[in-house]
Formats: sequence, C-alpha cells, structure tokens
Amino acid sequence: MKRPPETLTSPSNPLIKTLKGLERKKERQATGLFLAEGARLVEQGLANGWQPDTVVVATAVADRPHIAALAERAEAAGARIVLVPDRLMSKVTHKDNAQAVIATFRQRRITLDHIRITDKARKALYIALYEVRDPGNLGTILRTADCAGADGVILVGTCCDPYSFEAVRASMGSVFDIPFAAASYEEFEAWRREAGLTSVAASVNGTARHDLVDLQQDTVILMGNEQAGLPPEVEADCDQLVLIPMRGGADSLNLAQATAIMVYETWRQRDFQ
Amino acid sequence: MKRPPETLTSPSNPLIKTLKGLERKKERQATGLFLAEGARLVEQGLANGWQPDTVVVATAVADRPHIAALAERAEAAGARIVLVPDRLMSKVTHKDNAQAVIATFRQRRITLDHIRITDKARKALYIALYEVRDPGNLGTILRTADCAGADGVILVGTCCDPYSFEAVRASMGSVFDIPFAAASYEEFEAWRREAGLTSVAASVNGTARHDLVDLQQDTVILMGNEQAGLPPEVEADCDQLVLIPMRGGADSLNLAQATAIMVYETWRQRDFQ
Repeated sequence: MKRPPETLTSPSNPLIKTLKGLERKKERQATGLFLAEGARLVEQGLANGWQPDTVVVATAVADRPHIAALAERAEAAGARIVLVPDRLMSKVTHKDNAQAVIATFRQRRITLDHIRITDKARKALYIALYEVRDPGNLGTILRTADCAGADGVILVGTCCDPYSFEAVRASMGSVFDIPFAAASYEEFEAWRREAGLTSVAASVNGTARHDLVDLQQDTVILMGNEQAGLPPEVEADCDQLVLIPMRGGADSLNLAQATAIMVYETWRQRDFQ
Repeated sequence: MKRPPETLTSPSNPLIKTLKGLERKKERQATGLFLAEGARLVEQGLANGWQPDTVVVATAVADRPHIAALAERAEAAGARIVLVPDRLMSKVTHKDNAQAVIATFRQRRITLDHIRITDKARKALYIALYEVRDPGNLGTILRTADCAGADGVILVGTCCDPYSFEAVRASMGSVFDIPFAAASYEEFEAWRREAGLTSVAASVNGTARHDLVDLQQDTVILMGNEQAGLPPEVEADCDQLVLIPMRGGADSLNLAQATAIMVYETWRQRDFQ
C-alpha cells in the first residue's frame, strides 16, 4: 500500500458500529453501502468495477502477497483501508462466516433501461422475480442466472434486498456480475412489452408442461412469491403459464430450484448457445 | 385428547433442555430423536407413519380443532402431549421460526436394502450425495427428489445430518416422505452394481453435456461435495461423467441447483412418467 494503512485498535471504534449496522436494511438504505465478506468476494467486486468504500483486513493476513495486492487495488479504486487485529475481526464479521477480509461497496441502483437487450446475436433470457422474500433464494437465483449467462434479473414489486448479507453470500459473487434491476409490476410489464419479450411464468395454474413450450424466443421467465406465487392479474398478462411436473401428492419445489429448472430448460432448448 | 395433557409451567423444566439439546448432533445421536417444528411438518411425520415421541403445543392454539385433532392423533401413535404457555414457546422453538406446535420424532436408520428397486414398471432414479456438508442443501435436495418422485437418496461417506433442524426445515417435510439411506462409498458402489444402476456423475471433469447422455436406464445420479466435488477414484468408477453447461467465466452452480437440473433432465428424458 502506498501509505501506511489505518489500524483499528478499539472495539468501540465507530467503524465497527457502521459495519455491523449494514446488516440492517435501514442502514444499507441510509448509507447506500453493503457488505462483502471474504477476499474472493471483495476481489469479484473490484474486478467488476464496483466502488469499494472501506476494506477491512485482519492484521495476521495483511502481509500475504495476494491480500496486500487486493488492498492496494482497492486503495487505487478509492477505498479506505483499515487493518484490524484478529481479536477484533469477530466483531465485524458474521459468527458463522469468519473472514480475514471484508469490504463495504457502494450499491448500484440499476433501472430497467440498464438491462435492456444489447446482444442481438443471441436470444435474450431474463428472469423476473415477483415479490421474492427469501434472500437466500434471491442470492442463489442470481448465481444460477449468472452461470446460465442470463441477461439480467428483475426484482418486481416488494422483494427482499439483494444487498443483504444473506443474498450477497448466497450469490457467491454473482451479485457483482449479473445485472439486476428493481421495478414495479407496471414498469416491468411496460418494459418487457416494449422489449418484445415473451413472458413465461411457472405456476401451479400452468397447463402446458414447461419443457413443451417454445422457449427459443426472447424470453422473460416469471417466478412468483415463495408462498403466494403470482397474483391472478399478473398470470393473466403472461404469454404462457407453464407447469413444472411433480409427482402426485408432492408439495412444491423450492423457488430457487424451480427457477434453475426453468432457466436450464430454456437454455437447453437453445442448445446451450 | 383422552386424558388431560401435561402442562409445562417452568422454564427450568427438563423437557425444554431436552428439546434444545436436539439442535446438537450429539444429542440427536444419543437419543435417536429429532425435531420437527410446525403443525404442517408434524402432520406429515404422522401421516407417513413416523413414531412421535413428544408433541409440544402452545396453550393458545390447543383448542383449535385441527391442532386438537393433531394432538389426538399423535397421542394415539404413542406420543406424550405437553401443553406449553405461549411465553415459554420461544424457549423451545427457533427464534426465526416461531411455531405453535413442535414434536420430536424417532429417527429411522435406513439401510441400502430398504431402498432397493421395488417398482419394476418404471425406470429407477436414485440420487447419491457424496459427502454433502450443508444441511440446507441436503434438505432442499430431499425436497426436490421427492417432487420428482425419485426412488431414494443415498448419503455416501461423511455427510451432514439429515435430521438436523436445518435439513428438516429445508426439506419441507420431504424428510418424512422420500427414503434415504447412509452408506460408505464401498457399500454404495457394491449396492448400485448389484442393483444394475448406471451411475452418472455431474462433474467439472465431465466431457459429455448432461442432456446429451442417455438417462433413461435405471440410474443413480452422483453429486459431489460442495467444495471438493468427487474424488478421482469415485469418478473413475462412474459410468458417465457429465458436465452441466455454464457460461465462460462463471463460477459454479450451487449443489442443490445442480442436482435439481440433473434430476429434472433425467425425468424429462423419461417424458415425466
């Protein structure tokens, strides 16, 4: 690092309070920041050009070449670098996820305009989540959408926060990678009509089997809330309601599982291009 | 209920300690019991013939007809019924999952012999998880396997505990429904050869695309550990190593997501019969 980094020595340092505060949505909204825990995650944020605010490094690992390089890169990107003695690291990281590096990044407020179709060479695939509530599901879906090379994820209506610790962790860094936008249902529906996207919703009310409908056009896959699914008026707007088969008597698939099945079926129909 | 149920009044009652203890694997092993939280889950356990040990009901809901019926059914199945004042319920349930009914059930130790092919009319589908470590993944996979009507799940080697609270919760009751057995890798491999199952493993070393191999024979899908995947010697034993496509540069799919994709591709090839 170019200049000697700050060293935090007291557990009452306000930075600890600030970092802990980011576990609450209210604080994330007030500051516009969010937490990324672990060197790998921080690296992904930097690699994708996200703006780091503060990077906290455990003293014990600060001299390791790849950690020093990471801190240097973050500093060059404008971050404040703070060394924290190991005994205080547990104050700033999650109990079940002890990490030697954590960082705060500036949130991005991405609108639908930012995720419109740019690559005309291949068919578009978007995933719209209607009032998803579980941040683990959301993070997992971001990860799967990223793996499948989807064009973006749209959070429709009142969804859980993609910048929550649980969502960021479950996304395994995909939160930095795959574009996602939040929108009201009306905004979403206007956008998808203008973009010429066929909307295909997985629903218990679906009549067509999910693998027997044509998913080769520019498509947005619509998935409903974990408990309530999609409201009837939203289902009425969809071009296709499809049913993922289940054995008789079985309950329902987990939302993230159902989404993975839909996304991979779509990609399969496109021969994984 | 036939006789007036016990009412627990003191937070120092040993039952509370016993119930809380079941959050630890050691206590689950020592007692052979596990926890199911929520009326729906308890109902599923009873409906599937699992042996209830104790059923705890919050006083406030004890008179509701469906709760009273549930308690009666559990009592008929040999359970001890205990009423607990609402103020004490929080002592026996998880903070993030407040429930008015919880029960302990007796674990089943299912061997490979119990999950052998019985239905000759359709092709078999088993899922073998090699050293799966995350109970949320395990529970989610049990749920998906159940939805897809798989014949059973085999926990190979040192896996996490399917009777942990997290696994039971993520399974959404499928833990009571789908047969699962634990086995060493040697036991598993001997069993699957004797059963005539084709073994198909999803692996980063796979060369065939997962949807281009024939999954229409009696099949066991083998999935590796979250971090390490499958060891080379296990991969060498498999009939097929397949690769689930991912976009270039993407990290990996979550284990439960990858399993769902494999299971549903298999079932799709069988025309969802």
